[in-house]
Amino acid sequence: MTMPHEIPPRSGVAFTLDKGQRLTVIDPKGEQVADLLAFARDDVAEVISSGRTLDYASRIYLTTGDRLYSNRSNVMLDIVDDTVGRHDFLLTPCSKDTFRIIYGDTDPHRGCFGNLAAALAPYGVAEDMIPVAFNCFMNVPVNGETGELTVEPPLSKAGDRIVFEAQADLVIGLTACSALQSNNGSFKPIHYEIAS
Amino acid sequence: MTMPHEIPPRSGVAFTLDKGQRLTVIDPKGEQVADLLAFARDDVAEVISSGRTLDYASRIYLTTGDRLYSNRSNVMLDIVDDTVGRHDFLLTPCSKDTFRIIYGDTDPHRGCFGNLAAALAPYGVAEDMIPVAFNCFMNVPVNGETGELTVEPPLSKAGDRIVFEAQADLVIGLTACSALQSNNGSFKPIHYEIAS
Repeated sequence: MTMPHEIPPRSGVAFTLDKGQRLTVIDPKGEQVADLLAFARDDVAEVISSGRTLDYASRIYLTTGDRLYSNRSNVMLDIVDDTVGRHDFLLTPCSKDTFRIIYGDTDPHRGCFGNLAAALAPYGVAEDMIPVAFNCFMNVPVNGETGELTVEPPLSKAGDRIVFEAQADLVIGLTACSALQSNNGSFKPIHYEIAS
Repeated sequence: MTMPHEIPPRSGVAFTLDKGQRLTVIDPKGEQVADLLAFARDDVAEVISSGRTLDYASRIYLTTGDRLYSNRSNVMLDIVDDTVGRHDFLLTPCSKDTFRIIYGDTDPHRGCFGNLAAALAPYGVAEDMIPVAFNCFMNVPVNGETGELTVEPPLSKAGDRIVFEAQADLVIGLTACSALQSNNGSFKPIHYEIAS
């Protein structure tokens, strides 16, 4: 049994994933969000697209059996297992600006956005190329009548997981999310495993 | 009184908008969608962001008083008037792939995506830089329980309009949408006016 990799609280990593490999994202303590990005390894201008994916799925909540598409309408990742069933694909990674605008912080943390930008820079990904992330375990109910959305505590409990299978050679960005509201008021680590 | 500009059915245009100018998008016949994109004129890597905007608005349906933010969290456009109150900011512009994947077309139209890419190319915008558009008059109800989304006939009637005020010098992309389902089964023109 392999030990999972650990992403410390309020940080992020980037790594490659080969076509056919599986990535398991684990919430080890419960109620912790992990923002996930995927780029085509041979051309990082190709990136996961919420707009394409939600259009093809005809659903805003994705789970086992759903496919994450790129901005070129290629399948990048399949969700092959999911013990939670509630993730967000509407909102961009939290950032200095999120903390400034929503939380009123005067010396804001760089957030998932800054963590992803730093981790992905060696792969040639610039800040402006970071789109809406697939936010594992993030719980954003939408009121269908008013359109109002709220950021609620994740439904994930300790040990819950979501498993993706790569449909292309990818660069992955992954965080332990830095926004208090998204993680029910405390910052916890995220674990991940890669298997062939 | 100025004559409005006309965008013929299933086509698109790009033009500049100066800070402080107002753009009025008009549905002259009713039930016709217009996909709108905005880029910062001095650096087209800065572009409207659904993920930032919906996060700051805490709502998926935007209308008068709401602000469209960029991927750098700057305000690009304010919605200053709106006679409809239902627009979409979840889905990417329809494309060859949309028509292939959703409609099963074997010789698909290039769609709003192709029309926007062609119109915006002279401004230095590449296809991969086209994000989720603000889809004026597009009616995409979301079921808050299941997350299911459906593309329904626009609520706009002949002469309905939405008015934006530019908060920066912008490049705008605008279409008369090419997807049958989005426009209740027929393709109509879109009109627009620019005023200082």
